[in-house]
Amino acid sequence: MKEKIIEKLTEIVGERLLIDVDDRVSYGYDASFGQYMPDYVVQVMSTEEVQKIVQLANAYEIPIYPRGASTSLSGGPLPVHAGIVMDFSQWNQYLEIFPDDLLIKASPGVKTGDIHQLAEKYNLMYAPDPSSSSICTIGGNLAENAGGPRGVKYGVTKDYVLGLEVVTAEGEVIRTGGNTVKNVTGYDLTKLLIGSEGTLGIITEATLRLIPKPMDTKTAMIIFEDLYTAGKSISKILTSGVRPSKMEILDQNAINKVEDYAGLDLPRTAAAILLVEVDGDTDVLMKELHVIQQALLEIGVENVQIAKTKEEEARLWQVRKLVSPAIVQSGYTKISEDATVPLSKIPDMFRKIDEMKKKYNLNIVVFGHAGDGNLHPTINTNMRDADEVTRVEDAVEEIFHYAIELGGTLSGEHGIGTMKKPFFPKEVGEAGMVFQKAIKQALDPKNILNPGKIFPEAGEKRLVLKND
Amino acid sequence: MKEKIIEKLTEIVGERLLIDVDDRVSYGYDASFGQYMPDYVVQVMSTEEVQKIVQLANAYEIPIYPRGASTSLSGGPLPVHAGIVMDFSQWNQYLEIFPDDLLIKASPGVKTGDIHQLAEKYNLMYAPDPSSSSICTIGGNLAENAGGPRGVKYGVTKDYVLGLEVVTAEGEVIRTGGNTVKNVTGYDLTKLLIGSEGTLGIITEATLRLIPKPMDTKTAMIIFEDLYTAGKSISKILTSGVRPSKMEILDQNAINKVEDYAGLDLPRTAAAILLVEVDGDTDVLMKELHVIQQALLEIGVENVQIAKTKEEEARLWQVRKLVSPAIVQSGYTKISEDATVPLSKIPDMFRKIDEMKKKYNLNIVVFGHAGDGNLHPTINTNMRDADEVTRVEDAVEEIFHYAIELGGTLSGEHGIGTMKKPFFPKEVGEAGMVFQKAIKQALDPKNILNPGKIFPEAGEKRLVLKND
Repeated sequence: MKEKIIEKLTEIVGERLLIDVDDRVSYGYDASFGQYMPDYVVQVMSTEEVQKIVQLANAYEIPIYPRGASTSLSGGPLPVHAGIVMDFSQWNQYLEIFPDDLLIKASPGVKTGDIHQLAEKYNLMYAPDPSSSSICTIGGNLAENAGGPRGVKYGVTKDYVLGLEVVTAEGEVIRTGGNTVKNVTGYDLTKLLIGSEGTLGIITEATLRLIPKPMDTKTAMIIFEDLYTAGKSISKILTSGVRPSKMEILDQNAINKVEDYAGLDLPRTAAAILLVEVDGDTDVLMKELHVIQQALLEIGVENVQIAKTKEEEARLWQVRKLVSPAIVQSGYTKISEDATVPLSKIPDMFRKIDEMKKKYNLNIVVFGHAGDGNLHPTINTNMRDADEVTRVEDAVEEIFHYAIELGGTLSGEHGIGTMKKPFFPKEVGEAGMVFQKAIKQALDPKNILNPGKIFPEAGEKRLVLKND
Repeated sequence: MKEKIIEKLTEIVGERLLIDVDDRVSYGYDASFGQYMPDYVVQVMSTEEVQKIVQLANAYEIPIYPRGASTSLSGGPLPVHAGIVMDFSQWNQYLEIFPDDLLIKASPGVKTGDIHQLAEKYNLMYAPDPSSSSICTIGGNLAENAGGPRGVKYGVTKDYVLGLEVVTAEGEVIRTGGNTVKNVTGYDLTKLLIGSEGTLGIITEATLRLIPKPMDTKTAMIIFEDLYTAGKSISKILTSGVRPSKMEILDQNAINKVEDYAGLDLPRTAAAILLVEVDGDTDVLMKELHVIQQALLEIGVENVQIAKTKEEEARLWQVRKLVSPAIVQSGYTKISEDATVPLSKIPDMFRKIDEMKKKYNLNIVVFGHAGDGNLHPTINTNMRDADEVTRVEDAVEEIFHYAIELGGTLSGEHGIGTMKKPFFPKEVGEAGMVFQKAIKQALDPKNILNPGKIFPEAGEKRLVLKND
């Protein structure tokens, strides 16, 4: 049977079928946890190839796992039940801009950073900017509905996709949406498929919306003596009348990691710093930062440092970019969470995370997209220390439950994947699960599209950090 | 059987069950075409009532038609297969703002205009602004994913909804999304339900996102000598680097209708006028309009008149508001279309509509949301003239097909409803229809939620203007 599949896959993709153990091993992990072994890896290069492979997989009921650059933090592309990994990273040939329509069309393997660059050549902007944009693929961004720092003003991937070409579980090719910003013709399959983590259909092309590139930016760093005030400041800024284009927070732990790593002269004793960017016409940016400064004065926040030069501004954003590398560098395993809460609850969430640090004796760094309530409490842990792993699992579980209790969500931008599926029913409720499963069942009745993701399987009740 | 249903409905809503013929007649139409007779009308006032009625309807397989203020232009709330009209317009009691979270929560019968007003009290803005906002309900806006002039910069209803409470076809209550801008926990049921025209679930509460209210606005009127240049100007403006907050077009016919109706001193001989609003900091608005002016000069457009006072600005927007009343006033029946095309295809669409006027000898007025390619070719017709009605049907059909050919869509913001369902398969294709129907079948297997909408029924192949 395996030989027959190999023969058929070879007919479709030729040498782009990988079956050696070495090759398969390297397709078994992503930026989260767990290592799985796929049976086959196919590097697809066209819609027709995807279609034929899905038809084959459908006939033989073989699982398919679409995969971009494998930067997923939630286990999105992991081949948890073996089967076929469908690697899109080589299919990066198609990238076309239609400047008069404010559109870009791209094949799934195109790097997000290349889309940014092409748009900017025309003085336009593709707004979603996941931190991994220099390596991640647009296909992965679509599957996971990737976010990024600009989300506070410009929204996320879903807000910039007008249409998709998709291969269904039956191996049919459909087009969703179109080339217009407004479209209310039938159900919005585009927005259903984006963020569905490859479980409802396989995206083979996307039509993305561009907007005029803002003329200029200006950035301020706000320094806080306590975390609670830092949290309060976020709502205060967002209700000042100004719309920041980025609004990122680093707690003391994060500041010190970056400082240890890169020595950028950061205030090591601050409880937190907030980086706030405004964008638009050069002439009003300073005025807008002063509006923010004034609003913050009302709650006693005085330490606002405005970058005077473009170099200084770049240095501030470098700080944010270095948080993840700095944490990785500091040793052990990095567990990134992205529980998200309503804006006014950010101070509560900070307090909770602080409590978790003490209660479970863990090293937790907090940073993230403050302006959307999307924090990334990140735990540095030694995966060989079984007791510590259990404490991590307990702490993360408590953080998830608390986020939901505050009216927030398990995941703001990383997705559910394998990592958070045990907690999914808690957020959506029993009737919600029935509704969610009905959609999956209707569109992929044989469960061949990225099985083992989003929906918990029998016995899965805890954070999935281990592969067992 | 009917008596039993009446008894049970009375148990649920008491005197808010209407069964007199007079009452039922007035629930049989909307702002589109056709008159149908429901068996029962229930004015619901709580989730529990909705839930009980859906459970009853599910048990007896009775169709339910949710209805707001019945301003639909596509037949969304029409009770085409008799059954129960569920009137939400009385359920307008719950409207609460959470300014620190930048949120509003509302019951389905709240008027959109009341949401605007409440937000503005806090210097915030609920961006979607359908032209009917002073009478339409948020529930109707959600069902149809309503648009409006601000769509060009701020998007549509769907972009401002974070979460919903929904009664499913089984009569279960679920909550979708939440209170945060970012949420990637499972499938995006919020965005699937918005715009699904009441066919997948019944919305009983919405959590809406607010943004800071722009400080100021400024408006220019641009006068064109030919329609083609007017069309070209739209892309030109949108790629100038400025993001207009509104961008509305009126053709000569529309200008003259308004002038006949209200005498506002408009240029009757112009081929078209474009109204462009920019919003933001007062200090840059004039500068932004000059950027636009400069861009237009490059393609030979010189006649740009900038409103000097707030009164003058208000008068310009009054012009746009009066188009629909002016057309209604001019007699006969008004058939509003909303075919939408990619920005660069707007000149082609104008040319096509002009061709249709001549070919079918029709009175077509063109206006609409130029900045999203969302034109409203509106036909004034005598519904008693059978020959003319046929010509209208032919013209509209040609316009639809042409919009799709240009990479556009049947409907930008009005929805499919009863009016456009014969053309729906043409846009989404055969495999697309299978996918769309699979979702409907999975979530409403007995087809009790707003049947006769979106999906064409046997024999429906033409524009549905008549009730037969």
